[in-house]
Amino acid sequence: MSRPDAALARLAATRDDQLARLDALLRIPSISADPERRGDVHAAAEWVRDELLALGMERADVRPSNGQPAVMGEWLSAGPDRPTVLVYAHFDVQPVDPLGLWTAPPFEPSIRDGRIYARGASDDKGQLMIHLAALRALFEADGRLPLNIRVFVEGEEEVGSPSLEAFLDANRPDLVADLAVVSDGSMFAEGVPSVGYGVRGLVYLEVTVRGPRQDLHSGIYGGGAPNPIHALARMLASLHEPAGRVAVPGFYDRVRPISDEERRRLAGLDFDESAYRAQVGAPDLAGELGFPLVERLWTRPTLDVNGIDGGFAGEGAKTIIPALARAKLSARLVPDQDPLDIAGLIEAALRAAAPSSVAVEVRVLGRAPAALVALDHPAVGIAAEALEATWDRPPVYQRGGGTIPAVGGLSDRLGLPTLMLGFGLPTSNAHAPDEWLLLDNFVRGTEAVVRLWHRLGAG
Amino acid sequence: MSRPDAALARLAATRDDQLARLDALLRIPSISADPERRGDVHAAAEWVRDELLALGMERADVRPSNGQPAVMGEWLSAGPDRPTVLVYAHFDVQPVDPLGLWTAPPFEPSIRDGRIYARGASDDKGQLMIHLAALRALFEADGRLPLNIRVFVEGEEEVGSPSLEAFLDANRPDLVADLAVVSDGSMFAEGVPSVGYGVRGLVYLEVTVRGPRQDLHSGIYGGGAPNPIHALARMLASLHEPAGRVAVPGFYDRVRPISDEERRRLAGLDFDESAYRAQVGAPDLAGELGFPLVERLWTRPTLDVNGIDGGFAGEGAKTIIPALARAKLSARLVPDQDPLDIAGLIEAALRAAAPSSVAVEVRVLGRAPAALVALDHPAVGIAAEALEATWDRPPVYQRGGGTIPAVGGLSDRLGLPTLMLGFGLPTSNAHAPDEWLLLDNFVRGTEAVVRLWHRLGAG
Repeated sequence: MSRPDAALARLAATRDDQLARLDALLRIPSISADPERRGDVHAAAEWVRDELLALGMERADVRPSNGQPAVMGEWLSAGPDRPTVLVYAHFDVQPVDPLGLWTAPPFEPSIRDGRIYARGASDDKGQLMIHLAALRALFEADGRLPLNIRVFVEGEEEVGSPSLEAFLDANRPDLVADLAVVSDGSMFAEGVPSVGYGVRGLVYLEVTVRGPRQDLHSGIYGGGAPNPIHALARMLASLHEPAGRVAVPGFYDRVRPISDEERRRLAGLDFDESAYRAQVGAPDLAGELGFPLVERLWTRPTLDVNGIDGGFAGEGAKTIIPALARAKLSARLVPDQDPLDIAGLIEAALRAAAPSSVAVEVRVLGRAPAALVALDHPAVGIAAEALEATWDRPPVYQRGGGTIPAVGGLSDRLGLPTLMLGFGLPTSNAHAPDEWLLLDNFVRGTEAVVRLWHRLGAG
Repeated sequence: MSRPDAALARLAATRDDQLARLDALLRIPSISADPERRGDVHAAAEWVRDELLALGMERADVRPSNGQPAVMGEWLSAGPDRPTVLVYAHFDVQPVDPLGLWTAPPFEPSIRDGRIYARGASDDKGQLMIHLAALRALFEADGRLPLNIRVFVEGEEEVGSPSLEAFLDANRPDLVADLAVVSDGSMFAEGVPSVGYGVRGLVYLEVTVRGPRQDLHSGIYGGGAPNPIHALARMLASLHEPAGRVAVPGFYDRVRPISDEERRRLAGLDFDESAYRAQVGAPDLAGELGFPLVERLWTRPTLDVNGIDGGFAGEGAKTIIPALARAKLSARLVPDQDPLDIAGLIEAALRAAAPSSVAVEVRVLGRAPAALVALDHPAVGIAAEALEATWDRPPVYQRGGGTIPAVGGLSDRLGLPTLMLGFGLPTSNAHAPDEWLLLDNFVRGTEAVVRLWHRLGAG
């Protein structure tokens, strides 16, 4: 087995250089949600392409999508007997509002108290640069990589990856791999290395309920005209049992139960429920109360109304029966729920609860499948070894409650077993002011990746 | 019995003068909802006071309230053996938006096709000027009035009469009367004179439901954090039975049933239900389906959600569990429901349906009692005679579904039997562009009022 020692030594000898490159990328304000930053998103794509070529990849290019461009790179000279890994990260960042709450300007990186502060430090430029630094060290130390690497760096993750599916379909030949590694998340806690083996999927719906042709005077028409808010309230109330379980017929039919082993493992996690309660800050928690909280958050599907409006919501009183009411709702999905199947079930439940006096319209606004890699996949154990060798403790195995479209896409659409190696922390202000990345996580992250590629290449 | 003939002749001889005075008042843009029109509201008050003094009243003055000023006038020289009638109207008007939909500028009155077009033509300056023209003709023809008259002209009806109760209490000695006549509404249909004998009351509530301390990511927190929109939907859905009856315990307890005679009378009205359905324009009607539509609209209480909001309601998708959700709701009340009692019942029902994971806050934003005058009150028959003598057909007896705070105030707070003699029409665009008053209704209205005062004075 090839040894990572030379690359690890090279990493240790070039820390300033690695941080300077990260600093350069962090200075590009590549906010994908802001049309005025379109040029900066392109500049970030070109920066990443140039870096991939400079560090030693055989090919790298900026590729257009229906939305923001992506960067693809590859080095496939390890030979057909070595595995191919697809690395995923993204170079676009969240908006920076409210700007006044930043201690320092978001695109002028600074290191304070062992943390790198900047927009994108943790999500996801810092994690992208962990991978690129590892690749550079490997090339510089060994002149080659211990396995075949493809790199896919997205430019519209922060706006929900709207063009992802089409991009994956259009670039399928260059995405062939044995394994995908996604670095766009967090470790379970500081000092606790983590293997992420699943994310929940999503389907997002908008329901519009129409009653009268126009807003009506509630005195003159009250008692005759149907009220679409009443109808919508009844429809939404029908979606859950009072205790919190989703009441949509068929909703749980395809939920794959977790194994006893996984249940034990999740129960063994040091999940701080009282801290979680304090963070939520509500009178009580909710959800499927028969399941432990960690299982509810990671392994059970949910259905949440994300927004509602209708009629008069300003200050004071206005006496109308509104013409329409509208709600946005989304389900978080687990294997093997199909997003469009679930959308159909929710729509059927909504229609079943609607009175005949209103018209109902349901639209699907977005969807992404859940993803889960089997814990007995060989790569899981190898990743665990690489992390343990780096942090001097075994990793925890975590799933996520959120949805990373790329994970669903790589896993479901391309059929790749997909591991999540996140090097952020849950507290790192990923979408908030003063985003940061622990410097120690950057350092150990590069080491863990070098070890992982060597171990996978030897496997 | 004194005869109205001289005053009727005087009315006929001075039509141009009457319309010129109406024109002058209509030109004052006294929009009470617009803070920038405060001066115009005051100008309208002074115009009305001056007109009352000029036409012959013994006293008239502009009186401050906690909000907009009112005008009070009186002529009490008919003697203590003659009845005293309190006439109510208002000189403030609705806003004019959308201005672009007016055929002619809203404060430049024009007569087209037998209609007077202007903001306030029907609601309520035209009806106010019917009364003032009748008083002027009586004074000019007879040198006196056949009964004692007090006039109360409000300046904030179009913003819900927020200072009315305090004003009534503060001016109680000058509001003593045997009967109130309110002209601020419509006849049942064109050519159909109408005696209004009741209006519904109102109580308006705002309910706020709080869950998490702040909006949360629905992926990371979905399955753990309570969703205040779910709670609010459940609470609102609990307020009605599926078929439309209000399900709030105790809501109907104090509803005074209507008599068989009133039921027959309402059934005999030529109420055009198919036109009503077309106006509403919804797939079907709603309400307490066991009752005929007219009874539902006029004699039965209702509970309508007037507005709702919570979470993300913009374009596209945002995956949050919101911190709060809010609804505005109002009940239309009938005798003998007490507004604050009903508010308490609704609040109790909302709280009973709320899960323990959220906090609920309920505020009362407004209230007005229902009003109803007994159909066997002598004034009802006398008004009917005056209307029949004017329109050559007997009037219909109607109640209203809406709420006129002054009717509730005069009836409930001052204990005055209160008749509604409306000279607008349901189609006269009272709160819309191109508001109009039928010229024929103005003419006959003045005649009917002259006849009414003579008949009441003789009674």
